[in-house]
Amino acid sequence: MGKEIERKFLVDEEIWSALKPQKGVEIIQGYISKVPEKTVRVRIKGEEAFITIKGITKGVSRSEFEYPIPKEDALEMLEEFCDQKIVKTRYFVEQGNYTWEVDEFDSPQPGLVLAEIELQNENDTFSRPKWLLEEVSDQPKYFNSNMI
Amino acid sequence: MGKEIERKFLVDEEIWSALKPQKGVEIIQGYISKVPEKTVRVRIKGEEAFITIKGITKGVSRSEFEYPIPKEDALEMLEEFCDQKIVKTRYFVEQGNYTWEVDEFDSPQPGLVLAEIELQNENDTFSRPKWLLEEVSDQPKYFNSNMI
Repeated sequence: MGKEIERKFLVDEEIWSALKPQKGVEIIQGYISKVPEKTVRVRIKGEEAFITIKGITKGVSRSEFEYPIPKEDALEMLEEFCDQKIVKTRYFVEQGNYTWEVDEFDSPQPGLVLAEIELQNENDTFSRPKWLLEEVSDQPKYFNSNMI
Repeated sequence: MGKEIERKFLVDEEIWSALKPQKGVEIIQGYISKVPEKTVRVRIKGEEAFITIKGITKGVSRSEFEYPIPKEDALEMLEEFCDQKIVKTRYFVEQGNYTWEVDEFDSPQPGLVLAEIELQNENDTFSRPKWLLEEVSDQPKYFNSNMI
């Protein structure tokens, strides 16, 4: 387990489109629990799959417990437990000591692009990629669990 | 993952006390989700720990996905996500091709004893131990997730 310190930003789609890496990984995910104090997420990421339990966000930090599971189980759980799914393509952009994760959403908000950076400490600094727009870390409408 | 076919019974505590095995294993468990269609349970069983996702009970059958997790994670999740816990001692009784799991509850219903048998098929037959009382498979008040 660990504490997750994440900051989330909107992305300028035009600049992003010009600069983005060629390959991303497809993510399909759904929620078994969307209670904000304890979300339970099933995610398929390429050929891997995970179950992830997260606590409530406090500032930009939250507790997170993640375990790999068979992809087949994840498909069955998404089918049985999750009415709605998020489908998105994730790209990784290395910059300095950090890796930006940039998600292009296909569903339920096609066209939305969000960038996330995971920090070691809440006060860590990082340089801003050209495509980065304003921060939305504390805006619940951009929590994946609130999109569906 | 698998389908779980379980039948649950009350136990005659007097007969059980006279016949029960010497050693049981302590179980502490709580629920991250108690929604009947998709319960998420964290369980510590002796030195092991698990996260388990179960679907809704249909007859005596329900889908179940269980994954081992570090005991330390389970302790943290019980602390952060589960206000109430079930504490019980589980005994195993071999009989024929089956193993009865007999749970003596310490909390929240001290003194309650329930026996469960897991079958391969819904119509499998099995012999009845001397301490077995009436079946309560379909009585929601005996679902662990409803006790707390």
